[in-house]
Amino acid sequence: MEKIYQASTAEGAIDFINMYDLEEAAKEVIPKGGYGYISSGAGDIFTYQENERAFNHKLIIPHVLRDVELPVTKTDFEGEELTAPIIMAPVAAHGLANVAAERASAKGVARFGTIYTASSYASCTLKEIREAGGAEAPQWFQFYMSKDDGINRDILAMAKRNGAKAIVLTADATVGGNRETDRRNGFTFPLAMPIVQAYQSGIGQTMDAVYGSSKQKLSSKDVEFIASYSDLPVYVKGVQSEEDVERSLGSGASGIWVSNHGGRQLDGGPAAFDSLQYVAEAVAGRAPIVFDSGVRRGQHIFKALASGADLVAIGRPAIYGLALGGSTGVQQVFDFFKKELEMVMQLAGTQTVNDIKKIALRENRYL
Amino acid sequence: MEKIYQASTAEGAIDFINMYDLEEAAKEVIPKGGYGYISSGAGDIFTYQENERAFNHKLIIPHVLRDVELPVTKTDFEGEELTAPIIMAPVAAHGLANVAAERASAKGVARFGTIYTASSYASCTLKEIREAGGAEAPQWFQFYMSKDDGINRDILAMAKRNGAKAIVLTADATVGGNRETDRRNGFTFPLAMPIVQAYQSGIGQTMDAVYGSSKQKLSSKDVEFIASYSDLPVYVKGVQSEEDVERSLGSGASGIWVSNHGGRQLDGGPAAFDSLQYVAEAVAGRAPIVFDSGVRRGQHIFKALASGADLVAIGRPAIYGLALGGSTGVQQVFDFFKKELEMVMQLAGTQTVNDIKKIALRENRYL
Amino acid sequence: MEKIYQASTAEGAIDFINMYDLEEAAKEVIPKGGYGYISSGAGDIFTYQENERAFNHKLIIPHVLRDVELPVTKTDFEGEELTAPIIMAPVAAHGLANVAAERASAKGVARFGTIYTASSYASCTLKEIREAGGAEAPQWFQFYMSKDDGINRDILAMAKRNGAKAIVLTADATVGGNRETDRRNGFTFPLAMPIVQAYQSGIGQTMDAVYGSSKQKLSSKDVEFIASYSDLPVYVKGVQSEEDVERSLGSGASGIWVSNHGGRQLDGGPAAFDSLQYVAEAVAGRAPIVFDSGVRRGQHIFKALASGADLVAIGRPAIYGLALGGSTGVQQVFDFFKKELEMVMQLAGTQTVNDIKKIALRENRYL
Amino acid sequence: MEKIYQASTAEGAIDFINMYDLEEAAKEVIPKGGYGYISSGAGDIFTYQENERAFNHKLIIPHVLRDVELPVTKTDFEGEELTAPIIMAPVAAHGLANVAAERASAKGVARFGTIYTASSYASCTLKEIREAGGAEAPQWFQFYMSKDDGINRDILAMAKRNGAKAIVLTADATVGGNRETDRRNGFTFPLAMPIVQAYQSGIGQTMDAVYGSSKQKLSSKDVEFIASYSDLPVYVKGVQSEEDVERSLGSGASGIWVSNHGGRQLDGGPAAFDSLQYVAEAVAGRAPIVFDSGVRRGQHIFKALASGADLVAIGRPAIYGLALGGSTGVQQVFDFFKKELEMVMQLAGTQTVNDIKKIALRENRYL
Repeated sequence: MEKIYQASTAEGAIDFINMYDLEEAAKEVIPKGGYGYISSGAGDIFTYQENERAFNHKLIIPHVLRDVELPVTKTDFEGEELTAPIIMAPVAAHGLANVAAERASAKGVARFGTIYTASSYASCTLKEIREAGGAEAPQWFQFYMSKDDGINRDILAMAKRNGAKAIVLTADATVGGNRETDRRNGFTFPLAMPIVQAYQSGIGQTMDAVYGSSKQKLSSKDVEFIASYSDLPVYVKGVQSEEDVERSLGSGASGIWVSNHGGRQLDGGPAAFDSLQYVAEAVAGRAPIVFDSGVRRGQHIFKALASGADLVAIGRPAIYGLALGGSTGVQQVFDFFKKELEMVMQLAGTQTVNDIKKIALRENRYL
Repeated sequence: MEKIYQASTAEGAIDFINMYDLEEAAKEVIPKGGYGYISSGAGDIFTYQENERAFNHKLIIPHVLRDVELPVTKTDFEGEELTAPIIMAPVAAHGLANVAAERASAKGVARFGTIYTASSYASCTLKEIREAGGAEAPQWFQFYMSKDDGINRDILAMAKRNGAKAIVLTADATVGGNRETDRRNGFTFPLAMPIVQAYQSGIGQTMDAVYGSSKQKLSSKDVEFIASYSDLPVYVKGVQSEEDVERSLGSGASGIWVSNHGGRQLDGGPAAFDSLQYVAEAVAGRAPIVFDSGVRRGQHIFKALASGADLVAIGRPAIYGLALGGSTGVQQVFDFFKKELEMVMQLAGTQTVNDIKKIALRENRYL
Repeated sequence: MEKIYQASTAEGAIDFINMYDLEEAAKEVIPKGGYGYISSGAGDIFTYQENERAFNHKLIIPHVLRDVELPVTKTDFEGEELTAPIIMAPVAAHGLANVAAERASAKGVARFGTIYTASSYASCTLKEIREAGGAEAPQWFQFYMSKDDGINRDILAMAKRNGAKAIVLTADATVGGNRETDRRNGFTFPLAMPIVQAYQSGIGQTMDAVYGSSKQKLSSKDVEFIASYSDLPVYVKGVQSEEDVERSLGSGASGIWVSNHGGRQLDGGPAAFDSLQYVAEAVAGRAPIVFDSGVRRGQHIFKALASGADLVAIGRPAIYGLALGGSTGVQQVFDFFKKELEMVMQLAGTQTVNDIKKIALRENRYL
Repeated sequence: MEKIYQASTAEGAIDFINMYDLEEAAKEVIPKGGYGYISSGAGDIFTYQENERAFNHKLIIPHVLRDVELPVTKTDFEGEELTAPIIMAPVAAHGLANVAAERASAKGVARFGTIYTASSYASCTLKEIREAGGAEAPQWFQFYMSKDDGINRDILAMAKRNGAKAIVLTADATVGGNRETDRRNGFTFPLAMPIVQAYQSGIGQTMDAVYGSSKQKLSSKDVEFIASYSDLPVYVKGVQSEEDVERSLGSGASGIWVSNHGGRQLDGGPAAFDSLQYVAEAVAGRAPIVFDSGVRRGQHIFKALASGADLVAIGRPAIYGLALGGSTGVQQVFDFFKKELEMVMQLAGTQTVNDIKKIALRENRYL
């Protein structure tokens, strides 16, 4: 492990063709331990790899003569007007990628004009994140609960005070996955976690220790508690099955977040995109669906929206943009996805995001 | 980008075993930017690669004791007698491959004895292309529309004047795909586009700019307009679904052209060959079907014909022949496909092209 | 072949991240012939490779909000309390890996707290194995029968005398598979086989000779004979089909052991994990099921348990641990599997082994 | 092309582990042009590769407790007692591999004790082949017909005179496939073809010329003619579909030979093994079935027999044995297959070839 962790201080426009380029470049500027932590998956990385491969399980049929021009990605979501149905996923410790940390990413996302989801394990305080985004920017708060309910109440109160419009309960990480890259690198967190400092020391801890300090025994009661105490919409993150849809909605969740934590938790499970169809069928319009895990292209976003997602969240690519270009880099990443999405919309004959939702993808029979 | 673009001046017989050889050799003589433009696909080149792989999704059963000898590829198509059901696909800017440009390719195709489809973005005028092919040679005109209907009328009139027997409306390229090779090469068009000079400057433009100058908002009305104004059969190119078959035929199209633009437009979509079966079932004999995208072997042509295509169009391979051997090279490429097709016909027990159409391919269950 | 076979003498804690690391490291310390014998598969190693790939045929759905904390792997099995439903598979000649041979492995397994299955072809006597494990440790005896029934009676009596709680009849190795690595290495057994010395000389013999000396003509009568003579539960090992379930249970077997001998016997057959579902359906709860072949991860154990196995046996990984760390290494390997299993249990929302058995895996449709 | 073609003169025992080894070694002793001709497939070698891969489409379930010992491969076939249901496939020009040519291969096959199929394009006369095998050895004659019926009558009479017990009409090679290796090597036949010298010059000709000299226009009438003129059983070789089964049997064929000519003729067609199941179902016991193409293992033979084949023919491997060890090498190759088949029979619980035919293979669902 690096003695002193020296993250990038970059801020400004970056040059890239696609997200694979960006990842390659980011690997050069993020210290090894941090890069390993951010980029790697669990176990045999089967599920991590499936996340990207799975988008080829469904095919977009180019539709012609649809009278489409300059497709519109703008989206009204629960009263917010978003530049596109693309939001920032919660990612721990942005400070690993850039010293400006969440201050920069929240600013970039706000300039793009979409929802920013702040992680409990952020390197900044919620106040700093709030101020970086600006008062108008929609922010959600991702919650890793403490074992102590008093602390949980304090954190929720703090999130509310800082303008959080929804609470995202990450439910698929009650222990850390077998992230072997971190073990090989001897990675321990070099940064503090100010939001959860009441129960989590942060600096010098392994991921296993970090997850060990938070609450394992999550249940429906936690959803009920968060919803009633915060009076905010609760999204349960990590849902991949019909049963968990019912369990979540039945506990008072307002939204479902389909994710497998970017392939970092349970290896040997399905690609998140493959689970999306099960979840969307089960939700059947009762609640909004957010999707993440494996998104690297505009066509991936299109396919997720056509498969039932209302919003698509971006994780690692935004962090690579952050490492290379600070707030500007983050904004460019969102611009990239918007631009590719527009291209796909044009070629698929869809003028609006609502048009995408009515599209039927073709099952790929040849795999 | 090359300062001065120096295309090949080759003319004469070339030596090759198959189309992969030809592509390798062409890469050596076509300037890098031009080769990148011609050869590359969109995005992750998934669809580009699927185009070739897809032919293995269906299998030709060798049929024996069928009393076949010297199979006949000659084809009557809408009153034209063609040497084989293999035609020239519209490809932009043949001048990138050979200074003789479309003059050479039209001549080679005419000598082989089949339909030549001239691209709107040709490096020569329609008059030059017409003269190169000769008055008897059947030529079609591929149309990228202007946003200005007056210009569109002028171009259609010019096509008619130069003997076009059909108009091919390319409908799957209302914006350019994410062709990253061009961006990496910093490719801009080094050549003029005389046919569309009224709305398209050509020289020095990126592909995105070129597509941006043409009409995005294509609809059924454009098919109706072209059909009524030109009084020529209209083929809608880029059709891959039942819906688009109905939309096209319902708008007055006379033929359907199944294509995904050689995998250069929407990545994440199906192989064109896989779409062919959907289209053929929907068309159900109401109109002729042209097929292109991924053809590199006589067996591919056989499979397309057996799957419902009436004509199979060749793009990149002909351009590689053009680069290496001018008009002679182009003709040799068509001869190659004809010869391989004859071999397959013999081994599959089919004496004529009509026999091929009655053949049932076997679904490959093991993929 | 090595003139003098010098196995490792290691004893003590070893450092590893996963089982692939362990195999790499073990390759360095085990003499070439021995390593080839232990690690290799039969023929084209198709079945060997399928054994590992097959676990991806079924997917674990991460289940959230299940009120799980510190999952419990402890298992009651036929009156024995095991630390986890993970046992030691019979493996011949531990002396190839470590001079302490079965004495060390039996000790390590006993310390972990689970069943040890002693191979007929062990490098130690049953008495030594018994003493190494200790009187309380549950031990089973794997039987390769002699062609001489008198000898068989003697061996069974010896097993009983040494506390065997079950007899495992290996039925899938009546001849050796085509283990080409052994032939390339000119491998002959460098060690004696004291348990079967009455019919098997051991030292200097090829695997083919070893299998040739034992009984080929196994039938239902052998199961009946062993069950009645030993008055112990008999497990038939090598069962992969419904028919063999019926044949085994109908002959008086008490348990079914699903295995393809680690891909060392019949190449061109199914992965053992794929066969497990057929067997579990056929057994339908009438008898306990043990599973082995290809297990390298906690998720594999979870998937086997969720597919009907009651116990999962570990072979090669334990031998690699033995080579590198003696009894301690063996114990660490079992600890590794337990720890990974606990992680998977937590993430899959299963508090106990019984919960795992009620889980439905998702069929992987995309292969 | 080699000026003077110097084939191997080897005769005597060779050392090998499996058929892949043998092929590697043979490549060293067979002159390049000859090796290319023998080993290569057509076009993209898709079908060639499928031939071997296809055996994994079906899985052998190891069956236990079946009372099997020393399985018996001996087979009665149409009155002949064969050492195993494994015969010599017709292969042209054994002289490319060994100067002793068919004299050596016929001798090796006779010593093994099975049917030898002499190719029309053999490097020796039928008399030489007959004498090499000995009067008792069962020999079949593979027929490439002349365009001249008089010549055909002469050749059939010659075959009869030399003891042929059946005529094999190769129907899948009425023209040569696109064997590009031969073109790259500039391969022309360096050897005479004495059996067909009345219509085929042989020396100095390309494969295309050779096939061009023989009869293309094969039909049911040819089967009828051969059957009636020779009064011998006729096997139609190259059958892969139900239709061709009916056509063949309806024309008086006595047997069906499933083959795709070792992947050398029509690329883009199915693996021969995949076609076997269609053919076997269509034949439904009305006639014997011979199978070839892609066999490299005993398990392949087992799977073909379990899928409906009565005899399995070996081509390239025998020629490699011929190159390396003359008649002894050929015999060793047949011994290898017999030995592997016995091993598989033992492990699959099948005492006799008839037992194999009653076995149900398991469909591989995971491809």
